[in-house]
Amino acid sequence: MVKIGILGVGTVGASVANILEANAAIIEARAGKQIVVKRGVVKNLSKERGVSITLSDDPMEVINDPEIDIVVELMGGVEEPYTLVKRALQKGKAVVTANKALLAYHRYALQEIAGDIPLMYEASTAGGIPIIGALRTGLSANHIESIQGIMNGTCNYMLTKMINEGAQYDAILKEAQELGYAEADPTFDVGGFDASHKLLILASIAYGIDAKPEDILIEGIENITQTDVAFAKEFGYEIKLLGIAKKVGEGVELRVHATMIPQESMIAKVDGVMNAVTVVGDRVGETMYYGPGAGGDATASAVISDIVDIVRGNQGPMLGYKKGLESGLKLLSRDEIVTQYYLRLEVADESGVLANITSTLGEFGISIESMLQKPTSDEAVAKLLFTTHRCKESEMQEAITALGKLDVVRGEIAMMRIEK
Amino acid sequence: MVKIGILGVGTVGASVANILEANAAIIEARAGKQIVVKRGVVKNLSKERGVSITLSDDPMEVINDPEIDIVVELMGGVEEPYTLVKRALQKGKAVVTANKALLAYHRYALQEIAGDIPLMYEASTAGGIPIIGALRTGLSANHIESIQGIMNGTCNYMLTKMINEGAQYDAILKEAQELGYAEADPTFDVGGFDASHKLLILASIAYGIDAKPEDILIEGIENITQTDVAFAKEFGYEIKLLGIAKKVGEGVELRVHATMIPQESMIAKVDGVMNAVTVVGDRVGETMYYGPGAGGDATASAVISDIVDIVRGNQGPMLGYKKGLESGLKLLSRDEIVTQYYLRLEVADESGVLANITSTLGEFGISIESMLQKPTSDEAVAKLLFTTHRCKESEMQEAITALGKLDVVRGEIAMMRIEK
Repeated sequence: MVKIGILGVGTVGASVANILEANAAIIEARAGKQIVVKRGVVKNLSKERGVSITLSDDPMEVINDPEIDIVVELMGGVEEPYTLVKRALQKGKAVVTANKALLAYHRYALQEIAGDIPLMYEASTAGGIPIIGALRTGLSANHIESIQGIMNGTCNYMLTKMINEGAQYDAILKEAQELGYAEADPTFDVGGFDASHKLLILASIAYGIDAKPEDILIEGIENITQTDVAFAKEFGYEIKLLGIAKKVGEGVELRVHATMIPQESMIAKVDGVMNAVTVVGDRVGETMYYGPGAGGDATASAVISDIVDIVRGNQGPMLGYKKGLESGLKLLSRDEIVTQYYLRLEVADESGVLANITSTLGEFGISIESMLQKPTSDEAVAKLLFTTHRCKESEMQEAITALGKLDVVRGEIAMMRIEK
Repeated sequence: MVKIGILGVGTVGASVANILEANAAIIEARAGKQIVVKRGVVKNLSKERGVSITLSDDPMEVINDPEIDIVVELMGGVEEPYTLVKRALQKGKAVVTANKALLAYHRYALQEIAGDIPLMYEASTAGGIPIIGALRTGLSANHIESIQGIMNGTCNYMLTKMINEGAQYDAILKEAQELGYAEADPTFDVGGFDASHKLLILASIAYGIDAKPEDILIEGIENITQTDVAFAKEFGYEIKLLGIAKKVGEGVELRVHATMIPQESMIAKVDGVMNAVTVVGDRVGETMYYGPGAGGDATASAVISDIVDIVRGNQGPMLGYKKGLESGLKLLSRDEIVTQYYLRLEVADESGVLANITSTLGEFGISIESMLQKPTSDEAVAKLLFTTHRCKESEMQEAITALGKLDVVRGEIAMMRIEK
């Protein structure tokens, strides 16, 4: 019999306890041993948790219990779970965590501390989708060329509604909040931060890149309008919030932002709260992993798969390698990103304006791929929407600044990146 | 250093040897040890293989070599590799195989013989997609409710062309043969047999069901016409050759056949030679795995992922469990399958015919869900296309026999199953 302790018995923790009980026979058949929750730890003992396990409000009752073999960390936060996970590992206990923020900041330190003790985290990224296992084991023969992930269900739900139903951003955010898909303060989701944590985890397994959220480009979906949606449809794109990791020569681009992607790509077809991650390997080609990215039972499914794997005796280093993975590979700075861009700007509707805009872009080496001009409610103002050929992010940022200074340009210039 | 021997150095075997060499550094970083091919075995030593490894024509030079830790079986066939894999396991060597036919017939015997010695087979099913790992480990917390797989690229390529380009079956088969996607004798692919082997492997991991290809319903795509394609489009379906495993009460349906599935389902969006497998777990919900189902490098990617996993020290029973998995679960006979059906038949274009058809169906408890009547080039003959509500396969088969005996029915009656 293997005994586990759960730090944090919220939605996911309760699901872990309940599934281990409800599916006990099949899980025991697969793990080879019976798995029992000895104790769960919560902050507030008086709150009803809907579980039949013994609860405590002292995490050390799990960490110090010699009978507990595996500690499941589902507390959330960064520094407190970091301290507890370290202690558990130092006591020789295997750890399973669903905590993406913990890993976004401390994954390399934890891999070091864990050594040969299993520290698993399938549930940290894309919920119930076994993407960590796929990347860490299933694709281990490959140099990873790129990863593109829809890893935030809130954003994908909102974008799907905006695209399929013509909903406005503010209205659909309110709806998502009412449905419990978005928090009262939605910034962590709609600002791309949640997705960035997951991207950093995947990028570590794929490339061995050590970066923190502060080091990479993170933008959200807050500035997307129905004008952008209409343009995307017209030109054969979907709009998705993607976490992107891409090997370019000896560098790796890591970025999270709203992205126009061709409608016919598989990941463009992922709608609603579902998540999906596309991984391109140099030998396998394109693979994709699709499923629920959140929810108590789906996330608990991933947590338990790690527990079963540990009980089976499986191990291997946390991030999937012991030596340096891709020698010399460096995180590219935001300025070095090269991609295609979509721009939306409002301009004075007068002759010569288009020449003015295109020549300004030309000064930065940027050429236009496709264009659409639309009238606005103000007769003197036109909307210009266009896509560019590939150029450097630094050039684009400078061009946007220069465009903003033109007399003919009115108000903010909106930009979105395109991936093909 | 870990030394491997490869039995069968064809397309996949050569890819395995070449990738282990080309990606040696990253594979060593992930596996923790250097992996070297000591010897490859081929039938015909005079044929050029495009590899730099030592070749032999005697498999016992691999099996009996104490330096070789892992035997990679890529010979194809059933009985000869079975004998060799058994011997390798008996000598304590780990085995990696891509051989679906071997497993379709001998997987339970092999699991017994292997015991705690790793016997892995990621490449046997859906090529480069790590579906075995996902099902065996990633979804281990779940009772599996259903599996639906597009696991034959030849069929999916042909059906995609028939649907998107209006190609006729015979023309597209010829094209697939010219492109090397289909064999000179295409029966193994287009008849559904290849997919059935893969389905049986997945069904064993999911349900512990011991069945051979002869035990299950296997139909192919040979009878699909542009009339069926047009009907499917009209009523919002795609047509795919699916391998289906589904838990129904205490039984499991296992079947391979052309299937109408709703256009909006994720698996319906998988086009061309690509493969995908949807797995629904009772806790995780719907997940899908997508990627290349064939090709030397993609298949070799899966073979090497197994080698890396073994070198890391991972193990666990071959099929993912030691005890019975789902107690009392039985393979349902073909007659017990319950689903919706599509029927196409040609009838005399005269009054009362429709009543005649529907009342015949009614005698077997079958009711119609949707219907389309089309004229044919023969003024006296009409085409009737319809879908039924759910009924038992045995009732449908009897109804088709009864319909065939009606005076008003002309020629063959075509049937396709529908999954929603």
